[in-house]
Amino acid sequence: MKTITAHAAKDLRIEDHDRPSPGKGEVLVRMERGGICGSDLHYYSHGGFGTVRLKEPMILGHEVAGRIEALGEGTEGLTVGQRVAVSPSRPCGTCEYCQNSQQNHCMNMRFYGSAMPFPHIQGAFREYLVAGASQCVLADGITAGEAAMAEPLSVVLHAANQAGSLAGKRVLVTGCGPIGLLAVLVARAYGAMEIAATDVTDFTLQKAHDIGADTTFNVATSPDALVPYAENKGSFDVLFECSGVEVALTGAIPAIRPGGMIVQLGLGGDMTLPVQAMTAKELSLRGSFRFHHEFAKAVQFMQSKRIDVMPLITQTFPFTEAVHAFEVASDRTTSVKVHLEFSD
Amino acid sequence: MKTITAHAAKDLRIEDHDRPSPGKGEVLVRMERGGICGSDLHYYSHGGFGTVRLKEPMILGHEVAGRIEALGEGTEGLTVGQRVAVSPSRPCGTCEYCQNSQQNHCMNMRFYGSAMPFPHIQGAFREYLVAGASQCVLADGITAGEAAMAEPLSVVLHAANQAGSLAGKRVLVTGCGPIGLLAVLVARAYGAMEIAATDVTDFTLQKAHDIGADTTFNVATSPDALVPYAENKGSFDVLFECSGVEVALTGAIPAIRPGGMIVQLGLGGDMTLPVQAMTAKELSLRGSFRFHHEFAKAVQFMQSKRIDVMPLITQTFPFTEAVHAFEVASDRTTSVKVHLEFSD
Amino acid sequence: MKTITAHAAKDLRIEDHDRPSPGKGEVLVRMERGGICGSDLHYYSHGGFGTVRLKEPMILGHEVAGRIEALGEGTEGLTVGQRVAVSPSRPCGTCEYCQNSQQNHCMNMRFYGSAMPFPHIQGAFREYLVAGASQCVLADGITAGEAAMAEPLSVVLHAANQAGSLAGKRVLVTGCGPIGLLAVLVARAYGAMEIAATDVTDFTLQKAHDIGADTTFNVATSPDALVPYAENKGSFDVLFECSGVEVALTGAIPAIRPGGMIVQLGLGGDMTLPVQAMTAKELSLRGSFRFHHEFAKAVQFMQSKRIDVMPLITQTFPFTEAVHAFEVASDRTTSVKVHLEFSD
Amino acid sequence: MKTITAHAAKDLRIEDHDRPSPGKGEVLVRMERGGICGSDLHYYSHGGFGTVRLKEPMILGHEVAGRIEALGEGTEGLTVGQRVAVSPSRPCGTCEYCQNSQQNHCMNMRFYGSAMPFPHIQGAFREYLVAGASQCVLADGITAGEAAMAEPLSVVLHAANQAGSLAGKRVLVTGCGPIGLLAVLVARAYGAMEIAATDVTDFTLQKAHDIGADTTFNVATSPDALVPYAENKGSFDVLFECSGVEVALTGAIPAIRPGGMIVQLGLGGDMTLPVQAMTAKELSLRGSFRFHHEFAKAVQFMQSKRIDVMPLITQTFPFTEAVHAFEVASDRTTSVKVHLEFSD
Repeated sequence: MKTITAHAAKDLRIEDHDRPSPGKGEVLVRMERGGICGSDLHYYSHGGFGTVRLKEPMILGHEVAGRIEALGEGTEGLTVGQRVAVSPSRPCGTCEYCQNSQQNHCMNMRFYGSAMPFPHIQGAFREYLVAGASQCVLADGITAGEAAMAEPLSVVLHAANQAGSLAGKRVLVTGCGPIGLLAVLVARAYGAMEIAATDVTDFTLQKAHDIGADTTFNVATSPDALVPYAENKGSFDVLFECSGVEVALTGAIPAIRPGGMIVQLGLGGDMTLPVQAMTAKELSLRGSFRFHHEFAKAVQFMQSKRIDVMPLITQTFPFTEAVHAFEVASDRTTSVKVHLEFSD
Repeated sequence: MKTITAHAAKDLRIEDHDRPSPGKGEVLVRMERGGICGSDLHYYSHGGFGTVRLKEPMILGHEVAGRIEALGEGTEGLTVGQRVAVSPSRPCGTCEYCQNSQQNHCMNMRFYGSAMPFPHIQGAFREYLVAGASQCVLADGITAGEAAMAEPLSVVLHAANQAGSLAGKRVLVTGCGPIGLLAVLVARAYGAMEIAATDVTDFTLQKAHDIGADTTFNVATSPDALVPYAENKGSFDVLFECSGVEVALTGAIPAIRPGGMIVQLGLGGDMTLPVQAMTAKELSLRGSFRFHHEFAKAVQFMQSKRIDVMPLITQTFPFTEAVHAFEVASDRTTSVKVHLEFSD
Repeated sequence: MKTITAHAAKDLRIEDHDRPSPGKGEVLVRMERGGICGSDLHYYSHGGFGTVRLKEPMILGHEVAGRIEALGEGTEGLTVGQRVAVSPSRPCGTCEYCQNSQQNHCMNMRFYGSAMPFPHIQGAFREYLVAGASQCVLADGITAGEAAMAEPLSVVLHAANQAGSLAGKRVLVTGCGPIGLLAVLVARAYGAMEIAATDVTDFTLQKAHDIGADTTFNVATSPDALVPYAENKGSFDVLFECSGVEVALTGAIPAIRPGGMIVQLGLGGDMTLPVQAMTAKELSLRGSFRFHHEFAKAVQFMQSKRIDVMPLITQTFPFTEAVHAFEVASDRTTSVKVHLEFSD
Repeated sequence: MKTITAHAAKDLRIEDHDRPSPGKGEVLVRMERGGICGSDLHYYSHGGFGTVRLKEPMILGHEVAGRIEALGEGTEGLTVGQRVAVSPSRPCGTCEYCQNSQQNHCMNMRFYGSAMPFPHIQGAFREYLVAGASQCVLADGITAGEAAMAEPLSVVLHAANQAGSLAGKRVLVTGCGPIGLLAVLVARAYGAMEIAATDVTDFTLQKAHDIGADTTFNVATSPDALVPYAENKGSFDVLFECSGVEVALTGAIPAIRPGGMIVQLGLGGDMTLPVQAMTAKELSLRGSFRFHHEFAKAVQFMQSKRIDVMPLITQTFPFTEAVHAFEVASDRTTSVKVHLEFSD
């Protein structure tokens, strides 16, 4: 079978590997779709990010869906041919965090396509994948493309849980990449009263508008766009910071109401923040990292037609054109989520 | 009557003013005690802090208690001679924040001894004070010194509310000035399982130990003291950051568990923070600013003997020795809370 | 001007009263629409409910909207001719509950059309109403009928706040009168994953289905309809009990998951409940009563088209046909919300 | 080895069984102490309670502590001779509730000494017990008696979590058996401002007073004792209902403030409740059932001297006098918690 493997920055190869066999409690999935994530792009473009660096070849990919090709022992309830969304989250189940329902902080997490430990955790961009039955969520009634969106949607459902109730709230989203746009969709689905979004690219802001943002601002061309929202100590109850860019966060802070909540999803290193002003307004800055229980919910939200992610899939390529697909995905002015097709 | 008035940095004067008369719904309080707060010290030593500067003479003081000397109309339920703790928090009661039980964010707050608006809000270090009846909490059964501690204790009770339940939690306090030491007391009273405290002064750390901290660290002499607490992704559930010093906060972050809560009380301008690491651990950084409803609770906690603040009052001087008292209060190696005695 | 006044059970009169004038901070509203509520029906049909009885003639009505006819002093920001939804909630603003943002529990509440204190609080079914400016929420962009729905919608928004987040939850609604149907709408708007509804009338269940319930059950004809939901200790995360009928509540309890939330909106006297089973499953039974802050939100939800209440207004009559309208409103098999038209 | 086995109502036998051997991940505990619980007394006196009935002989007991006698494979970190508190909670770890941190609702729970499934789950009143290593919490620094109190203390720590923060709250406890008295201790440790307790026995009320209740009422002799607390819509923020008696609950409801929380711990079948009044005051009635994560915390609270359970152990007997001990434990006028000594 073929895999998409990163060897170093700008060295992405389609390689041959043996097809694996499912063990007890496992299934073999014939991959249909895989979505390219920002972290995949970092490995592709820069060989990693921050202190996380490629030290050996690594198969990329963790946003995937396919059909069950074969069943191992002890996988009752699943049937060959079923479409499944496959969760890349593989916590140990026994450490103190797993016991406490904080599986995303598992001491022994093996998340697909991650260079954090060494040896690296190999990813899921491959024609055949052996996955635990408990990682597989039946995706009847949705397309393979939607099923492959379960992962990034889970990231945002988790962030929404971190935010507390969004119902009736005024919500700001900074950064309209795939995660920011999903935040617009989720805020809308969760009853936000008003949704504003900022970015530096008109293409993504148009998407934000199309999928339900009430107002959008290009803060590259209108850097003072949020100033009117700072009146009366602020306007927004919740900020989903999805850019990881310091100025996006600091520029939004005056627009947030006293007692407001900032959920930080973007990853961007150290930042210099106006802590005194944040303290005086009693803002909360709360991180959100990955997900676990939300994966099955994400599939259900798409199945029930309550959340429609299809407008975010802007391009789909055969996996054999992976290098081209990664280049397209790197251009935020023309793409949101780029998908690879492994089979159909 | 006499007042203690700051004219400029290091220009503190005892002045004569006319004794005021209580109007409708007001009482005249003959002051007994006043506590010197960090903000009083900033006005005294530097003429202000950050952008908050003295622009006209201002009576200092907002931690006060006294006895009712005279009653205005409509003050049923109060009696001349009663001891009262006087809350410096005077919100308007009608703005959107007041309506929403966020009185500490009142658009029109007139907090005693504050140079933030101009004309400044005059303070309460004076022999006689006219206060609204609703500002006065009966302080039967506690001393004037304790009653004057109701204000800083309220600050910390409010911070504890911001933190969520402390019961059974492992709590770290960084900065053992009066606020940090009160955080130790409140954490203890609220059922914290373990309390660690850091400072750069052995005098305050000894106090922390005496009043209930399980462990104390001098991070000036042992800068790596918290390193062992960083194992297994962190140890503390809650951090009360009471120093306003960047390194105190950044040094504590590795010691906080995933999902942990940092309540920021210290005011210290901008800070450069490891936002990526905070995001990956899903920490919350939440500001705490002043208080409102907590004032009456603070008095009750002292009346019921559940919280004993007396060990924090390290020196008391006649108000006529105010300049000396302010100098003593400026030395963190020999004082915690310094009180002024206006009458007895 | 004319009013609709209840004198006793089945003695509803259209009476003449003098037109009032607005005082300081008040406006005169020329009424457009009024919705008949269940409590209005109880006064009409039975002269009250439980221990709440008519002891003198009382103008009915508390779900109203109209246009500003005249302005008293101090009502800046309002203009003659504007449409307003008028909140019937008039708390004192000064009691301990008002101070604590629990205005719906005000010790001195004067809620329109309520026989609870004596003299009764006269209601709002009248051609002209003097209301406090703060009771009036501008209703630009929505119809008078929608504006008059702000009150019952507020009741349900408050109940949803009591429930905690509904996002991704499985929600059951028992009793599909106006409140139950609004609960379906709100659950849908707030991101509930699945909504089931029960009633004993096919007419209201059809409405529930039309406005977004995923499943409906007539528990009169299919009393065991919820039994399959009791498997695995239960299925629903949240129950909005809107019937006030004991068997509706007790019949739903086995279908609720461990740790689930029951919000009780229906008023129905004493009930015999399986407290031991509720304890073993750690259910929460939480009351929801009226609203306060939610009123402005209700108007905004309709203005932003996020919630569409129009399908619930099943009949509208000129106020001169009030007796007929009350009879129609009493028949749950053909009506949901019946409106009176006072002017257009 | 000997066991204490219930065969039927009033048929309690000391029997011989083979001493078991620890398997992988298990330890053999030489029992030191066992506490007699209310459910043990129900099996002893009535052969069960409600629909839970003895259908075969069952070893009683689930509040136990002992010393490690032997170690199975894979029990690193434990040492022969150490004192351990043994948790009777044995969830499956894999069902949906276990995955969601609701282990107390495990679909396959095997809680010691429980006749709910058949065959019954045998209990821990035996000289030697094989337990999973993860059930054992090291109890260094506390007595065997205290260690055997970890189980009922866990029940109350869990209930306190259900209640939300107790800090600064006014707390009422109805029913001063072991659970009620532990609720007094926990409320005190968690910062409750005021604690009132009711019972029908002066002996237990005296205990309540001795361990920290501010006020106690014998509602057998003073049935109207709580009436003054009903003024201004109520006084208590939280009620721990530990009696399971309908009149205890209904009598307390008027004394609870609007928005107040009732945590139901007592098990007592169906109850007729004033649901309309509870709804109008927006009370929450929330069940609390067993515990899981709280067990280790319970041991820590005793080790840190923050909670002192010793006054509740009123009698201790050699296990050979089990029948007498059960009789003593049945008399609430002279005993609180009765312990059996298996070895020393």
